Amino acid sequence: MAPGTALARLDLLQRSRCTLDDPPLELDFTLSGLDDAKFEGLRPDLTRALAAMQALEAGSLANPDEQRMVGHYWLRAPARAPKPELSDEIASTLERIETFAAAVHRGQIVPPDGGRFGRVLLIGIGGSALGPMLAADALGRADAPMVLTVLDNTDPDGIDRALGAIGSLRETLVLVVSKSGGTPETRNGMLEVMRACNAQRIAFAGRAVAITTDGSALHARAKHEAWLATFPMWDWVGGRTSVTSAVGLLPMALLGCDLRAFLAGAAAMDEATRDQDLRRNPAAMLAAFWHSEGQGKGERAMVVLPYKDRLLLMSRYLQQLVMESLGKRLDRQGKVVEQGLSVYGNKGSTDQHAYVQQLRDGRADFFALFVRVLADRAGASASMDEKNPQGPTSGDYLDGFLLGTRAALFESGRRSATLTLDRLDERSLGAIIALFERAVGIYGELIDVNAYHQPGVEAGKKAAQQVLDLQARILAALGTTPKSTAAIAADLGADPADVWAILQHLAANRAQVRRQGGADPARATFVRG
Amino acid sequence: MAPGTALARLDLLQRSRCTLDDPPLELDFTLSGLDDAKFEGLRPDLTRALAAMQALEAGSLANPDEQRMVGHYWLRAPARAPKPELSDEIASTLERIETFAAAVHRGQIVPPDGGRFGRVLLIGIGGSALGPMLAADALGRADAPMVLTVLDNTDPDGIDRALGAIGSLRETLVLVVSKSGGTPETRNGMLEVMRACNAQRIAFAGRAVAITTDGSALHARAKHEAWLATFPMWDWVGGRTSVTSAVGLLPMALLGCDLRAFLAGAAAMDEATRDQDLRRNPAAMLAAFWHSEGQGKGERAMVVLPYKDRLLLMSRYLQQLVMESLGKRLDRQGKVVEQGLSVYGNKGSTDQHAYVQQLRDGRADFFALFVRVLADRAGASASMDEKNPQGPTSGDYLDGFLLGTRAALFESGRRSATLTLDRLDERSLGAIIALFERAVGIYGELIDVNAYHQPGVEAGKKAAQQVLDLQARILAALGTTPKSTAAIAADLGADPADVWAILQHLAANRAQVRRQGGADPARATFVRG
Repeated sequence: MAPGTALARLDLLQRSRCTLDDPPLELDFTLSGLDDAKFEGLRPDLTRALAAMQALEAGSLANPDEQRMVGHYWLRAPARAPKPELSDEIASTLERIETFAAAVHRGQIVPPDGGRFGRVLLIGIGGSALGPMLAADALGRADAPMVLTVLDNTDPDGIDRALGAIGSLRETLVLVVSKSGGTPETRNGMLEVMRACNAQRIAFAGRAVAITTDGSALHARAKHEAWLATFPMWDWVGGRTSVTSAVGLLPMALLGCDLRAFLAGAAAMDEATRDQDLRRNPAAMLAAFWHSEGQGKGERAMVVLPYKDRLLLMSRYLQQLVMESLGKRLDRQGKVVEQGLSVYGNKGSTDQHAYVQQLRDGRADFFALFVRVLADRAGASASMDEKNPQGPTSGDYLDGFLLGTRAALFESGRRSATLTLDRLDERSLGAIIALFERAVGIYGELIDVNAYHQPGVEAGKKAAQQVLDLQARILAALGTTPKSTAAIAADLGADPADVWAILQHLAANRAQVRRQGGADPARATFVRG
Repeated sequence: MAPGTALARLDLLQRSRCTLDDPPLELDFTLSGLDDAKFEGLRPDLTRALAAMQALEAGSLANPDEQRMVGHYWLRAPARAPKPELSDEIASTLERIETFAAAVHRGQIVPPDGGRFGRVLLIGIGGSALGPMLAADALGRADAPMVLTVLDNTDPDGIDRALGAIGSLRETLVLVVSKSGGTPETRNGMLEVMRACNAQRIAFAGRAVAITTDGSALHARAKHEAWLATFPMWDWVGGRTSVTSAVGLLPMALLGCDLRAFLAGAAAMDEATRDQDLRRNPAAMLAAFWHSEGQGKGERAMVVLPYKDRLLLMSRYLQQLVMESLGKRLDRQGKVVEQGLSVYGNKGSTDQHAYVQQLRDGRADFFALFVRVLADRAGASASMDEKNPQGPTSGDYLDGFLLGTRAALFESGRRSATLTLDRLDERSLGAIIALFERAVGIYGELIDVNAYHQPGVEAGKKAAQQVLDLQARILAALGTTPKSTAAIAADLGADPADVWAILQHLAANRAQVRRQGGADPARATFVRG
């Protein structure tokens, strides 16, 4: 691998490692392009970035566009919140969550129509779903007190399929998670579930819990309809960093996870990533690695390869955290920079049988982040060599594939880093989530973007609203005389391509809109059915 | 959107569309960068590519490295196979699959220890798993005769979790899918399931089915142990294009899918994509689109955004199909080209709340492929406007988000194409799979790479075997006197960084390997426990 003698190689490993003692965790940059020169070149900027993170943790308006503080770190160390009221609210919310979950598990909080709650149906999208999904998948146990189903879209068929798989909602506790309380996908999911409850002649409000900002439309509804409970979101917690707030903690508690261990793991990493000794600071090292692999411009994508089935969602979680935070048009000085860092991946060794061919041989437009979990399984493993009881186990193969693949990539000039955990549990999951949150914060400082807003999402929402508005006008314009797309568009002063797309969809779904004369936009006509 | 008058816009739509009548399907390139000039520039190469595809379909050795024909198209039109024996074998295999599945469903083929088969446990990886997983997810019905579980890795914990969720394997039919019969992950999964059957005191062979090449190690085992059945793989079907072979068809049949409709959909697309009239040929247009968006070098990644929960796995399927086929170091002349086309994505509108921020505002290093399904759900949808019964439904929102997002992306200079299906069913799934297979074949011709081998995968496998070999030597070298990593490495003449990684993993999993003195590679010692 690296040049030099055997001892020099061990020395390189020693100098390229960054570790945490508790939970035990190692970041290994031996096979990365982050050499001493690059690291030292970044030192002044990294030092400035850590100072900025310190100011952020002290309550500065780190998200100036939205005039907001950025406080997800306080969730793991309430005493660090800038006001005692906030500290109290964080601590008391955690206690309320634990008390609520325990009462559900003990059968003290029960469905309004009898039985016990055995299932959690979480309705949320983006930051309000991915964290809970990752935690449930990473930590799920066979003996968990409840099982989780998630509605994270406004796909009618997807909703039908999920509700169909559940069957009766009688023993289902429904969590509606929306920071703003106005996210249409989540609102639609809620309304669809309300209808399903109606159809099943069971109550909705008595099984519903809201997680939302005080004063939101969802908050008002939960109050008005006397839902089972409401837990707070705060404007100083972004959706993509909300997994250590009630958004992640309530579902985790209901699934039987140890919240204190999860938060302690995150707190331990927060502490380690405040370290001004940059080479001992895992988040500073990770941010420096990202910077050096992509020239500070995301010129290479990060391929996330956890060799652990339970971490399949990690790449999706990081996609959201990294790309939504760093993918920005303007820097903080208002200069057009079109920044970002693309993230994708699924799991190893499975992906070795999919796209690793391209990683090894094809476009050199990525770097890899391997994730390694040393403990293979709860019990002991058998040899997979039917003739040799000391032969390699399934887990030896898994780890061998990881080590082999990263070596093969390095051999062909592809760089990587490896994150190694002793085991995957609440503590280590909390730690790696905190690691990536802080690395994103530091990297945001390095490239001088606001990592805490998402202005680009608005354009799509506005355009979607225009589509729905145009749809209402098209519905009103349809009559008993067949009209062409062009004629309807001309009547409404609208773009015929937009009108066609909307009519295609309406005709496929509404009995009152009929298409005649085929699927050709120039020939088809539409009529009220 | 496009410049010009309303009628010009409809005209543009008309000229930028490429459609199939049955199953109804539309590719819309209006918002792409594939203009007339670019398309005409590609015409000679596209014409040559279609001729090459014709030769391939006639049985030429299109995969010269491995001296193999490429015949997955014959699976949908057996009469096209170059030899009558092949045609017969394809047709008779399909019949055997249907007969077998029907016998399982009717209770004529039953578990050796009583009961009925209600579950399919598929053990396979890469091409032997992703196709069946995609089909099961896309087409799964609440009233399906069997449910599917997949083991697609050698992760011990992942295997334990999957088997734990199943519980008793008594009513489980096990499919072991490996073309070569020697894939270690699949072999390990099989051995783990055999052990589980032993532990449950039920037979393995009597519930096991092999899908493999005649004469493979797996084939021999199935014969020797008298497994329930064996179905063939052929050397002229690549793993990533095997979903219309027994690999996809047997699980699909067991899950109650209509194989004839699936194959007919693929055959219809195959026919349409043989069309020499390039603008009417969906695969030629799609390949031209990819070429024009990435300058023929994959300079932009393809982000796949199906607005349909059931198509969540489509991006993973395409990642494998596209990246493994096109991600090549050498072209067919032996020149170093480091080609490829990166693919990622999950689903809309969910991803709008994740990384679409970066797509719209950040790095312009991608193009999007939107996938749209016009039919929202089986029944009718309710208005999501609680005050207006004619208001938008959940499906109107979903489609509105798709149309809005692609417009917002286009507005900021990001290109896309949209694939629209009337509905998602066997026929349309078969058609889109055939579409992408052919587009990959044509694109492979355009960039002159062998799209049918995967030489880069070997390096990682070899390196993994070296790790396992070194592990055996380390195990043999460990004694009752504690030794450092450096000492063990020196004794074995091995790289101490490799030795350290292997010892880390061994100490975490084997009682007979104990680590002493902490987690520092320079200080820790290892001893036989």
